[in-house]
Amino acid sequence: MSIQNTIDEKWMRVALSLSRRNKGATWPNPHVGCLIVKDEQVIGRGWTAKSGRPHAETQALLQAGENANGSTAYVTLEPCAHIGHTKPCSEALINAKVKRVVISTRDLDPRVSGTGITMLENAGIQVTEGIMEADSCYEHSGFFNRIVTGRPQITLKLASSLDGHIANENNESKWITSIKSRKLTHLYRMYSDAVMIGAGTAELDDPALDVRHIKTNQQPARIIIDSNLRTSLKSKIFKSINHFKTFICCLQNVKPNVVKKWESNGAKIIKCKNTSDGKVNLKDALSKLGSLGFNNIFCEGGSTLATNLIYNDLVEELILIKSGLLIGENGKSLVGKFPETPFLELPKLNLIETYQYGGDSVSIWSKPK
Amino acid sequence: MSIQNTIDEKWMRVALSLSRRNKGATWPNPHVGCLIVKDEQVIGRGWTAKSGRPHAETQALLQAGENANGSTAYVTLEPCAHIGHTKPCSEALINAKVKRVVISTRDLDPRVSGTGITMLENAGIQVTEGIMEADSCYEHSGFFNRIVTGRPQITLKLASSLDGHIANENNESKWITSIKSRKLTHLYRMYSDAVMIGAGTAELDDPALDVRHIKTNQQPARIIIDSNLRTSLKSKIFKSINHFKTFICCLQNVKPNVVKKWESNGAKIIKCKNTSDGKVNLKDALSKLGSLGFNNIFCEGGSTLATNLIYNDLVEELILIKSGLLIGENGKSLVGKFPETPFLELPKLNLIETYQYGGDSVSIWSKPK
Repeated sequence: MSIQNTIDEKWMRVALSLSRRNKGATWPNPHVGCLIVKDEQVIGRGWTAKSGRPHAETQALLQAGENANGSTAYVTLEPCAHIGHTKPCSEALINAKVKRVVISTRDLDPRVSGTGITMLENAGIQVTEGIMEADSCYEHSGFFNRIVTGRPQITLKLASSLDGHIANENNESKWITSIKSRKLTHLYRMYSDAVMIGAGTAELDDPALDVRHIKTNQQPARIIIDSNLRTSLKSKIFKSINHFKTFICCLQNVKPNVVKKWESNGAKIIKCKNTSDGKVNLKDALSKLGSLGFNNIFCEGGSTLATNLIYNDLVEELILIKSGLLIGENGKSLVGKFPETPFLELPKLNLIETYQYGGDSVSIWSKPK
Repeated sequence: MSIQNTIDEKWMRVALSLSRRNKGATWPNPHVGCLIVKDEQVIGRGWTAKSGRPHAETQALLQAGENANGSTAYVTLEPCAHIGHTKPCSEALINAKVKRVVISTRDLDPRVSGTGITMLENAGIQVTEGIMEADSCYEHSGFFNRIVTGRPQITLKLASSLDGHIANENNESKWITSIKSRKLTHLYRMYSDAVMIGAGTAELDDPALDVRHIKTNQQPARIIIDSNLRTSLKSKIFKSINHFKTFICCLQNVKPNVVKKWESNGAKIIKCKNTSDGKVNLKDALSKLGSLGFNNIFCEGGSTLATNLIYNDLVEELILIKSGLLIGENGKSLVGKFPETPFLELPKLNLIETYQYGGDSVSIWSKPK
């Protein structure tokens, strides 16, 4: 590896770290990081603002001012070339007379892909691509997933006993995993655009789905997959509807007066296609959530929703948190029943990472590419 | 930490590494390592021979010869003080005029515990204890378990899909975990005194239970928990009875002609107490196996035996190998049904280690001390 490459990696690592500052709060835009460096000194730092504007490059250039002339800009994602609410970032970099732009990965957005780079090169700017690309592809995978499939990336969290159960036969499930692991879950919530659950879990657990165990004012939206719009108007979710964005995916024929109750209080009701057995078609629901701009959704169950997401190949990432408890066969299953499937056609995920946390074993799995 | 301490740790690490040379083949004796060092030079290395004799110290002293005079001996376990087949090792160290003995941990064998150290000190030898003690306690935990409880240490291996199943509803279970993980299992077999299964697994899988995927001539004994002595005389285990030691734990009233078949071919039939529901009492079986000298038994299931071992608190260590396959609720459970137990009284193990191996997630759990 050349010395330049090593230097580029060093600065790109910083840009990636900056990109995570507003992770979970920039949707519909990706969370991008930008660093402006001149004579081995950082003269500008930027990251996508909440709700997506201003972009990382705009903010970093603002910090650098006229000093940007002759500098190198490190961006985790190809700068935009299309005109949205503001002038494209590629133009801003050109106008600032930046000498060189180092891009971690190309944008898959058809309005940008490659054209941002062409714009820069046509203006005589030296462009380097592919620095720490695997890392930025991971960082922007939710955004890419939405651009390519129209659907947000689903990260499914499952927590179970050592032998794969989520509760005993009496539905007791408290303290299966540790307090520390629950904090970890809240961190994942915070870094997601939205937290999603099924109507069964909304009823059984009555969760608020907010981030509590970490100090932050960043709260994800909440999504319930609730075919018949049966979530109680006395639920914590309904009661906290003014504080957190709330979306409910249901069938077309739900009661209009219930819809009105939710909507007049600020929730968004998303009417979806139905499956042959009269449930919300998950692919359709996710496409509609995608068109609302969600890039990353963190799904916390329950078992029915998890099973349907897995079986319909809609889980891109799975986080399994496992404690040392042994419940035995009579416990509730982590994943529900699949339609009959030949053994060799069962879904299979790839292991990405495994670590210990708060006495539990955490493993991260992803859909084979 | 003093310089002497750092030096002692360095050499004890080597002694521990030597101790593992015959791990799995030294029972009824522990697998001990010994290193003789003089003027910062290794002058003798020893480890317990197969079947337990000669001891590590004997062999290391033999190598050192007269040069042992004035040296330091590093031993992973307190040298024996009782007279067995040979003179005690403490006496041998005294006779060799060793100047100092560094001991990782005391022996829990009541015939030794502390008396080995006293013998050395009374002879004017300087004794240092507790160097890398946690490591040697782990290394000798099987031996200690037998000394303290009369039973061998049980390491239970479980392999499952991501969602905690060992097969689908049609009992298909091939390739749940990777080929590389199966090699790992053979490594664990090799390091154990015996491999144990239940009669159901013997019937269903017809395993040979030998170490095949690793080059070695070291083979563990084989133990079947088989209440009614129903394992087939056409099984691979019966056919290979001349090559590998074989032990079957069954009830008192099994058919004498079947017992004779097994015994005349070289197996040992161990008649055990029964439980109230007419099965082999596992605690009694393990006590009888303990009195035969087994220190470490590697149990590979199946589900019934695993469940009974867990529920009777007889599992000291559990190795869970988990692949990314998802089978769904209709799959066979990793662990069977427990008798009704209040949620807070369910068994719970502590996480020791977690790592990736061959695409699978491996986690190691142990009984809380």
